[in-house]
Amino acid sequence: MSISIYRLTVPMFQRGLGSLKTYLDKAEAYAKEKNFDPGILISTRLAPDMLPLSGQYQRASDSAKFTLARLTATEAPKFEDNEKTFDELRERLEKTEAYLAGFSAEALEGTESRQITLPGKSGIVLPGDEYVATFALPNFYFHVATAHAILRSQGAPIGKRDYLG
Amino acid sequence: MSISIYRLTVPMFQRGLGSLKTYLDKAEAYAKEKNFDPGILISTRLAPDMLPLSGQYQRASDSAKFTLARLTATEAPKFEDNEKTFDELRERLEKTEAYLAGFSAEALEGTESRQITLPGKSGIVLPGDEYVATFALPNFYFHVATAHAILRSQGAPIGKRDYLG
Repeated sequence: MSISIYRLTVPMFQRGLGSLKTYLDKAEAYAKEKNFDPGILISTRLAPDMLPLSGQYQRASDSAKFTLARLTATEAPKFEDNEKTFDELRERLEKTEAYLAGFSAEALEGTESRQITLPGKSGIVLPGDEYVATFALPNFYFHVATAHAILRSQGAPIGKRDYLG
Repeated sequence: MSISIYRLTVPMFQRGLGSLKTYLDKAEAYAKEKNFDPGILISTRLAPDMLPLSGQYQRASDSAKFTLARLTATEAPKFEDNEKTFDELRERLEKTEAYLAGFSAEALEGTESRQITLPGKSGIVLPGDEYVATFALPNFYFHVATAHAILRSQGAPIGKRDYLG
């Protein structure tokens, strides 16, 4: 007995994207209540050489979609990374969720042993199961948690429960 | 074919704790170079009602140890949560690593179906595999990524590669 690649990817990502959607709703309400432009939150970053909130959403979305594309050796849909409003970020989440919903547990059977080349210049190749454990999951949660950190640093009323879903 | 509970806990946590150790080394060197008290970093938080850096380390350590204790229905060692220096945080990581190293893959066999009660007041009970996927992994990465966020927000020269290990 153990955990399937499907359980460790599609539902994990769906849950994290759900948290990211909750953050948008709460952060937008917070901006309205405090009467400031919510776009300020979208361009907020924790350090000048870190991605702003929008970038954390884009990378979380990419992390989810590319994991599925690499595991199944198929092409992921292209997104332009041009989201600048809360509604555009919601749309990005919805497009990512629609893509994820297209994968059944059966479609991922056997992908544990498929050889996956990591993105970037490392050229590292890992079997699917190691790719998910070593790279895909930590990377996805990094961007969800960093989005959380950015919003919390700006006083948005989100909490650990929103993260855990 | 799928991924074992062991693979999804002990090595995942060991890797994350290794990242947390790298952060300490780089952040301490950064404080020395900039000539400020490194203790400032340890008490830095992103929001007044969030845990400081030391708290993120303590919760990452707890998340790892309690996951193993709950899965195996054994007692985890008690740590006092009183770390205030870089060396004390290193010691906390080492004690956690020593505890994790005591678990073999065989010790976790069958824990997928053990009924685990989530911490807190929810009273939610999940089988071991769902507990790891739904709660333990996201929670652990939250604290590692938040430690990363705190240090980055203070200019510490750490990066995504340190997080991914």
